[in-house]
Amino acid sequence: MDKKQYVDKAIHAYYERHGAVSERLVDAILYSVDGGGKRLRPLVLLDLLEDFGVTIEPGHYDVAAALEMIHTASLIHDDLPAMDNDDYRRGRLTNHKQFDEATAILAGDSLFLDPFGLMAEADLADSVKIKLIQALSQASGTFGMVAGQMLDMTAEHTQPSLVDLAAIHRHKTGCLLTYPFLAAGLLVEVSQDEQALLEEIGQLVGLAFQVRDDILDVTADFETLGKTPKKDVIAQKATYPSLLGLDQSYHILEDSLNQALALVEKLEAKQAKNFVKLRALLERLRLDG
Amino acid sequence: MDKKQYVDKAIHAYYERHGAVSERLVDAILYSVDGGGKRLRPLVLLDLLEDFGVTIEPGHYDVAAALEMIHTASLIHDDLPAMDNDDYRRGRLTNHKQFDEATAILAGDSLFLDPFGLMAEADLADSVKIKLIQALSQASGTFGMVAGQMLDMTAEHTQPSLVDLAAIHRHKTGCLLTYPFLAAGLLVEVSQDEQALLEEIGQLVGLAFQVRDDILDVTADFETLGKTPKKDVIAQKATYPSLLGLDQSYHILEDSLNQALALVEKLEAKQAKNFVKLRALLERLRLDG
Repeated sequence: MDKKQYVDKAIHAYYERHGAVSERLVDAILYSVDGGGKRLRPLVLLDLLEDFGVTIEPGHYDVAAALEMIHTASLIHDDLPAMDNDDYRRGRLTNHKQFDEATAILAGDSLFLDPFGLMAEADLADSVKIKLIQALSQASGTFGMVAGQMLDMTAEHTQPSLVDLAAIHRHKTGCLLTYPFLAAGLLVEVSQDEQALLEEIGQLVGLAFQVRDDILDVTADFETLGKTPKKDVIAQKATYPSLLGLDQSYHILEDSLNQALALVEKLEAKQAKNFVKLRALLERLRLDG
Repeated sequence: MDKKQYVDKAIHAYYERHGAVSERLVDAILYSVDGGGKRLRPLVLLDLLEDFGVTIEPGHYDVAAALEMIHTASLIHDDLPAMDNDDYRRGRLTNHKQFDEATAILAGDSLFLDPFGLMAEADLADSVKIKLIQALSQASGTFGMVAGQMLDMTAEHTQPSLVDLAAIHRHKTGCLLTYPFLAAGLLVEVSQDEQALLEEIGQLVGLAFQVRDDILDVTADFETLGKTPKKDVIAQKATYPSLLGLDQSYHILEDSLNQALALVEKLEAKQAKNFVKLRALLERLRLDG
């Protein structure tokens, strides 16, 4: 099995271990869990741990799995009629279309609540788990992803400034993309300095991802993108290209990746290690402008 | 300040401490938090701790606050159009009527995610907090409350058996009513035997609450009930009275309270203490049939 499959297995194992009360609920949860996600956030966490020289153990997969569950829950709720009202995701019916709205709300609720139990049961030190749980709650709830989604909803039908747009992205997608960096630092128990470095790298990666996504929405065709292009343009969503133009957007992407690389060098010096996988991730994010 | 006010303060303090990203989101959260709930579950927890001879400290209020936040989230989502579609709760507009549906979904999501951060930050031993978090996740998500809500939704338009009805209630309302008993045991770090006793008492109290609620829906007038009576009858919901008649329902209520009292006696013998507040709670639940 590859790392992605181990993450999937950790999610499934949690539901099998405790047994279903409502089969429909577990079916709806696993429908979205098994919906073809790339497991980006879990894989960044596991790659980072390997860069730190850590041997990946079951407890690490549980943390990665918990993070993916929160991400999956947010997609189910974002697709709801009262939110983005999407009928399809990754070529399949969205949860509320495959089941119904009530079921999709409940499946999302479960996928917000269950990860904290999964993490609490992980084979890791209690002191580390408490920090991981605190950071995951902060990254996902009122101070993270959910707040970003709320900012995004309230910014619709307005013309947000670049500062507004940055705040939306920093919370809506940035916090969960930064979490693997925070979690890796907590698992390795790095110094406060290094933890701050990791957080900063994570935030720059989050920014790069979002700008890249915005650029690709304008420039890529369906095949490259794997989803309908120009969705943001059609929805008249504020994006980096719509606010700054394409050239400037490419520049921000390059700049954030270069800044991140400079911080990676600092981290490598402190750890006396080469962060090969992290560097490879940053290089993969580059686009030729 | 009384205990209820300290619980409210613990919730507000958490949001003030971390600062709002989206004011609208925090407004919607606090609208429902401040919606006149009786804080039943928190007060049961705090009463139990006092029965154990524990001096209530800030960390205990944080656990009580976290439990109330999960309960509040469940009410916001239960009221949504796709669920019970209620416009009023406790004489005020429901969250999605006061704000809008998207905001209510997000406020509920936040109130599911934030309590785990609040608990993780509580001034309690890490080993205890991990157990409290694990139990809260189990009581609320796929293996608890959310599952009960799903069973309830799927049972609509069918005639559930008494076994089905018991399973719905045991999860939908029972798990969060049992949680104060589990949490008290974990906080006092009682023996496994006593923890099992506490869980059994909690489950009986949960059953008694639900049967009592069902009876009052049929027999009480608006003033006694504080809400519209005969709501279940009108909605043709399966209840203990509708399945078994009133006499038999009174009998189940009495029986569950007497069973609980017998277990309280056992607990008192083990602890060499009188559980005065727990006994008073059980007596308050009695109804004259």
